[in-house]
Amino acid sequence: GEFRVAVLTVSDTVASGAGPDRSGPRAVSVVNSSSEKLGARVVSTAVVPDDVSKIKAVVQKWCDIDRMDLILTLGGTGFTPRDVTPEATKELIEKETPGLLYVMMQESLKVTPFAMLSRSAAGIRGSTLIINMPGNPNAAAECVEALLPALKHALKQIKGDKREKHPRHI
Amino acid sequence: GEFRVAVLTVSDTVASGAGPDRSGPRAVSVVNSSSEKLGARVVSTAVVPDDVSKIKAVVQKWCDIDRMDLILTLGGTGFTPRDVTPEATKELIEKETPGLLYVMMQESLKVTPFAMLSRSAAGIRGSTLIINMPGNPNAAAECVEALLPALKHALKQIKGDKREKHPRHI
Amino acid sequence: GEFRVAVLTVSDTVASGAGPDRSGPRAVSVVNSSSEKLGARVVSTAVVPDDVSKIKAVVQKWCDIDRMDLILTLGGTGFTPRDVTPEATKELIEKETPGLLYVMMQESLKVTPFAMLSRSAAGIRGSTLIINMPGNPNAAAECVEALLPALKHALKQIKGDKREKHPRHI
Ligand code: NA
Repeated sequence: GEFRVAVLTVSDTVASGAGPDRSGPRAVSVVNSSSEKLGARVVSTAVVPDDVSKIKAVVQKWCDIDRMDLILTLGGTGFTPRDVTPEATKELIEKETPGLLYVMMQESLKVTPFAMLSRSAAGIRGSTLIINMPGNPNAAAECVEALLPALKHALKQIKGDKREKHPRHI
Repeated sequence: GEFRVAVLTVSDTVASGAGPDRSGPRAVSVVNSSSEKLGARVVSTAVVPDDVSKIKAVVQKWCDIDRMDLILTLGGTGFTPRDVTPEATKELIEKETPGLLYVMMQESLKVTPFAMLSRSAAGIRGSTLIINMPGNPNAAAECVEALLPALKHALKQIKGDKREKHPRHI
Repeated sequence: GEFRVAVLTVSDTVASGAGPDRSGPRAVSVVNSSSEKLGARVVSTAVVPDDVSKIKAVVQKWCDIDRMDLILTLGGTGFTPRDVTPEATKELIEKETPGLLYVMMQESLKVTPFAMLSRSAAGIRGSTLIINMPGNPNAAAECVEALLPALKHALKQIKGDKREKHPRHI
């Protein structure tokens, strides 16, 4: 079957109703329209404020109860005092996946030097891959695009597919 | 107003008086001469030996008491037994800023493959950005140069400037 | 004298006798044939299953008792549930060496996008440098090749060679 994806918009503004969620729907659209390459579909979305415990509560439920294959968070990865998505994520991750961050950074820097201000974290909890994406919808779309060549393979490996165990370079 | 910068030279040799501090004055000059792009000025400098507790004492005071906007450390980032600046720094950092390290590594490797031996750390404590730079004056200058396109923006974000919150890619 | 290298093959398949060790002998050959640039020789090899405590036991002995200069692990760096080599390694490392990981990732991505799935760790314990390599023999060879321009220098620095302390960029 298809991989199950959850998308979490992290934003004080959106959570309080003071502004629309432009990132979430765009990310859902990018994932669902990549279904041929990715074999994945967004089955759950949520919005939380920039708060460590609130971010953790949703992500942990999606991992441990709902057994999502992939969680994409959107926003909260910058340098402002309220940006805490990476800190919340690192508290939940059991295995870091630094290569995904490398590729997102490499590709994002080709678009803008401000990409160096992303503090995104990524890693595996149980059988769920969690990846922090920037809050900017275009930037998030570029990051998903950068991961597409190996993301399906990553999700298969996490599920323990042994046929996926010894590709080139892993 | 301008951002306030502190520069810490970490070197047994300089701290013991056995050699001159070539890194510190050069870094001060680079920061002050970038003031147009960076809007920052060096207001404090110090020299400490390669000792975790001595490094931490100065950096922590500059963060928590003097409320510096940016701290640049120089040296102690290599592979020798005395090189402990990243370890001291990581004990103080509350939020990691891996993209700054990525860009410094990317640019430094264009100059020399020995750049792969930098173990620099970087991150935010309170409202202060701390960045480890190499001890070599030219290398440190190249690292500052690599960060300049986004460093002013970083310092504004850390201070909580909301107009700075949603640029492209953060 | 020459630097002493140990090579650890991490693989359930090889450890159980269900398959041959293709990675280990290839890595030994790569290191020994690079002896001119690297000044190193493989003096010990072992095979362990993908088990944190078994990986740690061998690596810790090679560091603390046998005082190896360099330990290369092969395999167990991917996304499957059994891949735990980076987690075992991080529990032993005292000082991280992120630049080595950067260069391995940079070079590996030139060969295949699946390189982003490497979760390799690297760092220093005492006077031993530990580097996780991919299990694929060609990929491991490419990673060693990527590090060669600075690896001998790294090993000299770890031994405290002061003449090696202030090269360009460290
Ligand atoms: Na790069």
